[in-house]
Order: sequence, then structure tokens, then C-alpha cells
Amino acid sequence: MLPYNIHHVAIAVEDLDAALEGFADQYGFEVLSRETVEEQKVEEAMIAVGGSHIQLLQPTDPMSPVGRFLSRNGEGMHHIAFAVADIEAALEHLKERDVVLVDESPRIGGGGHRIAFVHPKALAGTLFELVEVVHDG
Amino acid sequence: MLPYNIHHVAIAVEDLDAALEGFADQYGFEVLSRETVEEQKVEEAMIAVGGSHIQLLQPTDPMSPVGRFLSRNGEGMHHIAFAVADIEAALEHLKERDVVLVDESPRIGGGGHRIAFVHPKALAGTLFELVEVVHDG
Repeated sequence: MLPYNIHHVAIAVEDLDAALEGFADQYGFEVLSRETVEEQKVEEAMIAVGGSHIQLLQPTDPMSPVGRFLSRNGEGMHHIAFAVADIEAALEHLKERDVVLVDESPRIGGGGHRIAFVHPKALAGTLFELVEVVHDG
Repeated sequence: MLPYNIHHVAIAVEDLDAALEGFADQYGFEVLSRETVEEQKVEEAMIAVGGSHIQLLQPTDPMSPVGRFLSRNGEGMHHIAFAVADIEAALEHLKERDVVLVDESPRIGGGGHRIAFVHPKALAGTLFELVEVVHDG
């Protein structure tokens, strides 16, 4: 498997409105989409930058994974998401190499895309996400 | 100013060779370039992913900024670099807004590009870098 793009880089923030204002004022970025993803207990916003995105995550529950990340670390970079053509094949490739996964099979994330997280102990202390983009219609 | 791309996402690692092997084995990524940047006391490697890059940073000195980051946090995401067409104009735009900068004027980074860092307290707890790409020749 070879991811074909960095789909997004996610940043955990305390206040999504304030962060979006800051990105607009400092960099001229406008918000592309915004939604609450109940399963992950986050409100998320996407900003398009070239062919990739910055994703901002504000927890809706302080005990959620992103809420606990904020309590521990404060605001900052949370994960990197790679776009893959076939998420089942990508997960199979990682399982064959005994890579530690957070999600053994895909689930539905923001935008309706199929996603799975790879544990940060697998590589470079970094939480990676695989995204198989699902197009509307 | 509007950055036109995510130029790279940087990850601090203890062992660049081991990290590159991991990225090759787990994701099929090959190294695009590798160099030591004396001024920043890092050995850095770039991996192309779609129209962007993952940059891996291994400190050559434990007291350098990346060395101290590793001592404090362990391996993990270090900064996000935005590609801008005109780095002087971008810095001027940020100064007009009283954004706290690490570099008041551009310096030369890896690949010979012109770079400047923005302080993480300016926005979303994240260290951002501006990159004006300098083409060979």
C-alpha cells in the first residue's frame, strides 16, 4: 500500500470558533466544512490548504480521547491522516507486519469517509489515521 | 497571504534510519532527500506523500531545539510548514497582527528554501513554519 496523499493534519483545540478566527486572520484560511462526529465526541472543522487539509478538533466531552489529550498536553497537533485507495487492503498490509492498530476494521468518520487509526507506538510516536475517501452520491 | 500548500509535516525521531525503515515497511514510502542542517542541528529526511511531504528530524545535538523537544515529549509531531509565495509579505502580514514570531526575518533551511517559524503560542498550540520554496538553478 502506498498512501496517495496527506488527507489532513489534525490539531486539538479548546475553542473551535476562536481557532477558526485565528486561522482566518493570520493565514487567510476559510472553513470548508464543520460537523459534530458523535462517535468520537468531537466537533470538527476542515480547512483546505492546497491539496490537503488542516482539521481542527474540539472535544464535546472532556473524557473523550481528544478531551483527555487536551487535558494532558494542551492545544496542539493530534494526528496525521493518510489517504488510501483501499482501507481494507491497507489494514491487512499493516496486520501482516504486526503493526499495533487502534481500529482493526474501518469505521465511519467525519465527512462519511471510512477511517481507521494506527497506534502511535507503531511508528515515530505519531498517531496516524488511514482515510478511504467516500464521495457523495 | 494565503499559504498555497502544506509543504511538510515534521516529526521528531530518535533514530532516522529506523524511522525511515518503518515508513518504508509500513507505508511503502521511500526517502526523497536527506541532509544535515547544521544551523538547526538536525539530520532531516523528506518523504513525498501526494503533493506534500513528511519530514523526519533527528537532532545531532541533545541540547538543540529538536533534541530538547525529544527529551521533553519523546518522538512525535513537531511542526506544520505552510508553503507561501512571498515569505517577506507573509511575515509582514503576521507582524501587522502582532503574531509572536520565532524568526523576525527569513533564514535558509533544508533544501535551500527560505523559512521562518511562528511561535506556537500564536495559534492552536502549534509550531508553524513558513516556507518559500527556492528552486534549483
